[in-house]
Amino acid sequence: MGRTIYFKNKPSILATSSISGPKEGEGSLKNYIETILKDDMFGEKTFEKAESKFLYHAIKKVIKNSNLTEKNIDCIIAGDLLNQIISSTFASRNFSVGFLGVYNACATFTESIILGSTFVDGGYLNNVICGTSSHFSSAERQYRYPLELGSTRSQLAQWTVTGAGTLILSNEDKSVKTECATIGKIVDFGVKDPFDMGAAMAPSASDTLVTHFKDTGRRPKDYDLIVTGDLGAFGSRIFKDLMWEKGYDVENQHVDCGELIYNIKEDEYQGGSGAGCSSVVFCSYLYKKLKDKSIKRLLLMSTGALLSSVSSQQGESIPGITHAVSFISE
Amino acid sequence: MGRTIYFKNKPSILATSSISGPKEGEGSLKNYIETILKDDMFGEKTFEKAESKFLYHAIKKVIKNSNLTEKNIDCIIAGDLLNQIISSTFASRNFSVGFLGVYNACATFTESIILGSTFVDGGYLNNVICGTSSHFSSAERQYRYPLELGSTRSQLAQWTVTGAGTLILSNEDKSVKTECATIGKIVDFGVKDPFDMGAAMAPSASDTLVTHFKDTGRRPKDYDLIVTGDLGAFGSRIFKDLMWEKGYDVENQHVDCGELIYNIKEDEYQGGSGAGCSSVVFCSYLYKKLKDKSIKRLLLMSTGALLSSVSSQQGESIPGITHAVSFISE
Repeated sequence: MGRTIYFKNKPSILATSSISGPKEGEGSLKNYIETILKDDMFGEKTFEKAESKFLYHAIKKVIKNSNLTEKNIDCIIAGDLLNQIISSTFASRNFSVGFLGVYNACATFTESIILGSTFVDGGYLNNVICGTSSHFSSAERQYRYPLELGSTRSQLAQWTVTGAGTLILSNEDKSVKTECATIGKIVDFGVKDPFDMGAAMAPSASDTLVTHFKDTGRRPKDYDLIVTGDLGAFGSRIFKDLMWEKGYDVENQHVDCGELIYNIKEDEYQGGSGAGCSSVVFCSYLYKKLKDKSIKRLLLMSTGALLSSVSSQQGESIPGITHAVSFISE
Repeated sequence: MGRTIYFKNKPSILATSSISGPKEGEGSLKNYIETILKDDMFGEKTFEKAESKFLYHAIKKVIKNSNLTEKNIDCIIAGDLLNQIISSTFASRNFSVGFLGVYNACATFTESIILGSTFVDGGYLNNVICGTSSHFSSAERQYRYPLELGSTRSQLAQWTVTGAGTLILSNEDKSVKTECATIGKIVDFGVKDPFDMGAAMAPSASDTLVTHFKDTGRRPKDYDLIVTGDLGAFGSRIFKDLMWEKGYDVENQHVDCGELIYNIKEDEYQGGSGAGCSSVVFCSYLYKKLKDKSIKRLLLMSTGALLSSVSSQQGESIPGITHAVSFISE
């Protein structure tokens, strides 16, 4: 049967919500992100509590935006980068709703949409919230160095997005729908530099997209946009090269959420990353473009680097994973 | 629609596999666990690499036991307790198969079965591997104290199971099937002691079971066994009390995987725990009993405590979650 699945009833997106920190709010998507905070601590005492509050806010807001109430929500499917996905669990404990925690690093957002779409498409659940979050400061101190150290950033380092994005998948008939998906497999090219995630993830993005094209018989031109999660500037180049080698030219369709979210300046180098990167970009800008039909077919491919600080310390390489979801606007 | 879903085509269990360390191999299930190692390092240099190898072995073995080949497997759904679920990701990168990482602490095993059953039942995938692992030594040093410190264990502390359990869900018709499931919600009674996980998880186990009974109209006697994951001796007592308060007497049906796996001796106090606890017990003993029809209806309720060392250090309580899956033997 393989890795590509079809949603014959095409679950609809009932609503989305997005929230970000001030830095993201100054970028190219400033007119699309629903809530832009002036203080990325969100009134909390720790980075982790702040991140969780971002996601809590995005869950609460997406329910409001959908005109549903909490009682109509059957399940929240969420994940994030913090150890034991505490951002998602502590955000979700405030809702009297089923919860399924997921983790595929920065590929978690499309993973959650694949699961949510399957539940809704198969008639198992009616309304499912999918969402992810990340926070620059909680990610830096967990994965890299304490901010207080003032370390110089590597040229290939990305900037973790501070924000959260959520959407509700539903069996109601709305214009933006999920239509099919390709589940990622883990691809490991032996990259070991935790400051070069783009290179670690690009081979998995290429593997998933080639698989998607082969399984569906589609070509790049069948999509208005092919959107990767957070390959960054360098990773995107590797990805397009790898696709070219396999006989697919995606130059005209490809864009990366990590490139979209910031007006790239010298100190950000590669653009945004993080589990919240593709969710904030999709739940603000891309969803809006699908809804107003300026984009009609979009393949969202959130990309994940499957490392932990322990695996890197033990000399392990960084495997990547990419899940693809096809959205249509009817 | 709510939290209980029905699998109308009843996905079958094609095969299971279980592997454990030497301590688990001396317990009550010694004649049921498929592979019992003499060395819980499994020839590896670190606890984390050892844990990952346990899961790798259980995935490889379950494919063999099913008489399928890797090519026939559509997806691996797995999770574990290590930061960024590295045990599952590094185990799964060796297979050219789709991967969906999940995390609900020690409730991850039934979470993976709910997702796998939905994919198979709805006709999206044919053969899905579900599995979890845990390792005493990797869990101790990540969540508690370095082993070298020789700390005294709390009276309410449980013993993390060293092992992994896997099963294959399939659309082939076999005798043991999943029939319905109740997705857990996060329940927080404000317990803050990370050495008293049973008390933190018992309220969520009770919530899920009451919801399951209400949604399905079933009573305790409709099951031969109602099996919690790792409430331990004290947590099990709280769970049964809470059920009694809600009008359900589960004394005759209830058993806890954490109590089953060890011959409880003084130094283990509360019994086993860990994401591998319910998977090892189910994939060895319980599956065997279902297969030979000495058990005909079984409700498996893996129980999870949603904490991290960071959330505890920041003064947070420990929310619990419990997912229930009903198995039948036909």
